[in-house]
Amino acid sequence: MADLDLDVSAPLGGGVWRFPADRPLVLDSGAKISGLEVAYQTYGSLNENGTNAILICHALTGDQYVASTHPTTGKPGWWTRLVGPGKPIDPARHFVICSNVIGGCMGSTGPASIDPATGEPWGLSFPILTIADMVRAQAMLIDALGVDTLLAVVGGSMGGMQVQQWAADYPQRLFSAVIVASASRHSAQNIAFHEVGRQAIMADPEWRGGAYAAQGARPEKGLAVARMAAHITYLSEPALQRKFGRELQRDGLSWGFDADFQVESYLRHQGASFVDRFDANSYLYITRAMDYFDLAAPHGGVLANAFKAARDVRFCVLSFTSDWLYPTSESRHIVRALTAAGCRAAFAEIDSDKGHDAFLLDEPVMDAALTGFMASVERERGIGR
Amino acid sequence: MADLDLDVSAPLGGGVWRFPADRPLVLDSGAKISGLEVAYQTYGSLNENGTNAILICHALTGDQYVASTHPTTGKPGWWTRLVGPGKPIDPARHFVICSNVIGGCMGSTGPASIDPATGEPWGLSFPILTIADMVRAQAMLIDALGVDTLLAVVGGSMGGMQVQQWAADYPQRLFSAVIVASASRHSAQNIAFHEVGRQAIMADPEWRGGAYAAQGARPEKGLAVARMAAHITYLSEPALQRKFGRELQRDGLSWGFDADFQVESYLRHQGASFVDRFDANSYLYITRAMDYFDLAAPHGGVLANAFKAARDVRFCVLSFTSDWLYPTSESRHIVRALTAAGCRAAFAEIDSDKGHDAFLLDEPVMDAALTGFMASVERERGIGR
Repeated sequence: MADLDLDVSAPLGGGVWRFPADRPLVLDSGAKISGLEVAYQTYGSLNENGTNAILICHALTGDQYVASTHPTTGKPGWWTRLVGPGKPIDPARHFVICSNVIGGCMGSTGPASIDPATGEPWGLSFPILTIADMVRAQAMLIDALGVDTLLAVVGGSMGGMQVQQWAADYPQRLFSAVIVASASRHSAQNIAFHEVGRQAIMADPEWRGGAYAAQGARPEKGLAVARMAAHITYLSEPALQRKFGRELQRDGLSWGFDADFQVESYLRHQGASFVDRFDANSYLYITRAMDYFDLAAPHGGVLANAFKAARDVRFCVLSFTSDWLYPTSESRHIVRALTAAGCRAAFAEIDSDKGHDAFLLDEPVMDAALTGFMASVERERGIGR
Repeated sequence: MADLDLDVSAPLGGGVWRFPADRPLVLDSGAKISGLEVAYQTYGSLNENGTNAILICHALTGDQYVASTHPTTGKPGWWTRLVGPGKPIDPARHFVICSNVIGGCMGSTGPASIDPATGEPWGLSFPILTIADMVRAQAMLIDALGVDTLLAVVGGSMGGMQVQQWAADYPQRLFSAVIVASASRHSAQNIAFHEVGRQAIMADPEWRGGAYAAQGARPEKGLAVARMAAHITYLSEPALQRKFGRELQRDGLSWGFDADFQVESYLRHQGASFVDRFDANSYLYITRAMDYFDLAAPHGGVLANAFKAARDVRFCVLSFTSDWLYPTSESRHIVRALTAAGCRAAFAEIDSDKGHDAFLLDEPVMDAALTGFMASVERERGIGR
């Protein structure tokens, strides 16, 4: 840590950490953001050797509340199955960090934040972000938390993209990396679904060209439609069939456009509840960052090159059989590249009919895989348990 | 035909046929539509024995212009690959009929038509329709064309639903039936995608509660988003990847929300061109009819029961390996039911990476299957060729 020459300036437990005024974040686009704020939560504390820190990276609509109650929804943390007392990631042993990505809307600087230059919300004048930009801000946050190297960086879906970016950009700061239900680049179909969501938002006149916040409006209908479309991609066809099939909401059909089928009602609920906790412009910016993600591209189009400096990092890659958003073939592609780069990579495809969202749901085989991997990593790192 | 006691009142070639005033169409909902109009095209002419008529049923956004230029888009008929001189369905040998479904927007009575009771467009006061209602109107149209029995009823996707409904409701009027890329009921995922499209339309303030036509408005943005979402389901992931991958529109990224990727531009074009030829309320009504479709339901939940009276009908069922909208498992479900009902059913799963839309595209194996099936049907029916 001595070479970083930093004070531990970010408080334990969580809050919002503000970048020092003289350290703007330089983005891939070339733009700079000064006074960037990163909202985060921590659980547990750093051990004496500084070897027990774990960074958890959230997915598109996730946030820093990985293991604590969400302040808006009142729901438990989104990964309490894996993070908590007696879980594979345990604040009793680990210093757990989770931050809201930049561009997000749970406290980190994003398009809904106030642009100091105008005193108005940034809106569409906020610069376009990349997954690498998000990771760059996380690296500065862990500096501020006094963390030099991470025992593990862990994430699912977009979180797994950040994990790969960490391995490419900061391999010397990682001991291990866990990539769940993810991909090394967005496919044409991935981009297509995101574009539908963005068009749904931008079609809403309440979006006001992105300036809705300054004008006291909210593109709730457009954002709800975007969420509904995306939500279908998070579930497998068999899971939808098992959960809902053609079950009706009431006895008999309405012979109208009410939600006759339970699956319609479920989707409408997903859309309606999402707008209470998410910002439409953040949705545009984060989906754009995911679409732009193509880890091989800046490495001559060869993914293995991105991982060349990560030979000492222990990788764990997990996928789910019924995930059609980031199917197992994408994980295999990552594992092949890791192998070609000379990295150690454990890989498991987990049998599940729950689709992409399996990484957030009750999947004991996934828990077991992560438990085993974390135990082996801790042994190698010399952390007793 | 004598027992039907009908004049041939619908002109050859095509046009709009108006139901006699004393014959309202009674719908499954219980509603009646008087003076119903059905827009249709015919090709070729009925032979002396009346044995060469073929009805072609169109898909969700299709129309009666199966083998002739579309009046709005100027594009060739949507199935000229299969219908035309030297094709498996050939006006030189067959009397080909194709009608716009009721609820549609290409001339048949639908929500954009004028409600005689008010002198205004029906809008949402138009009654909810079913696939059976569409078929009932088609049966009345072929009466008016002087056709007693059909050599074949043929359709893909929603067209295939109508074919199955024909087999259930009018088996004695069919000699053969061809069901392509279809299903016997909408799955939860099918309903979910349609609901996203409907919500996108209804979220557009220009929809005006369905009364846009009377108010001189058009919910173009919502309808375009609906089309974009649906369009993704028509293509396979490999086809999207092959056609577009991550190819850019221009050199380099825009670092904004322009259509950077070719797949975005393609989808936007699909949305924009669709609104020029389709009515938003028709989209609501027809998707609803498809969601309501569950052929087994009125037959005690046993699909075979629906086909029991169709034992003399020769069936051909075709599916495509990469169709994830109506996957091969749905076709197999139909074939099992046909077999259980004692029907003769030819079945072929065709290797294609083009997804659901394969039935509209260049798939020589499909052409060959249909050619062979039609030849055998014609031999059995005693039509020389």
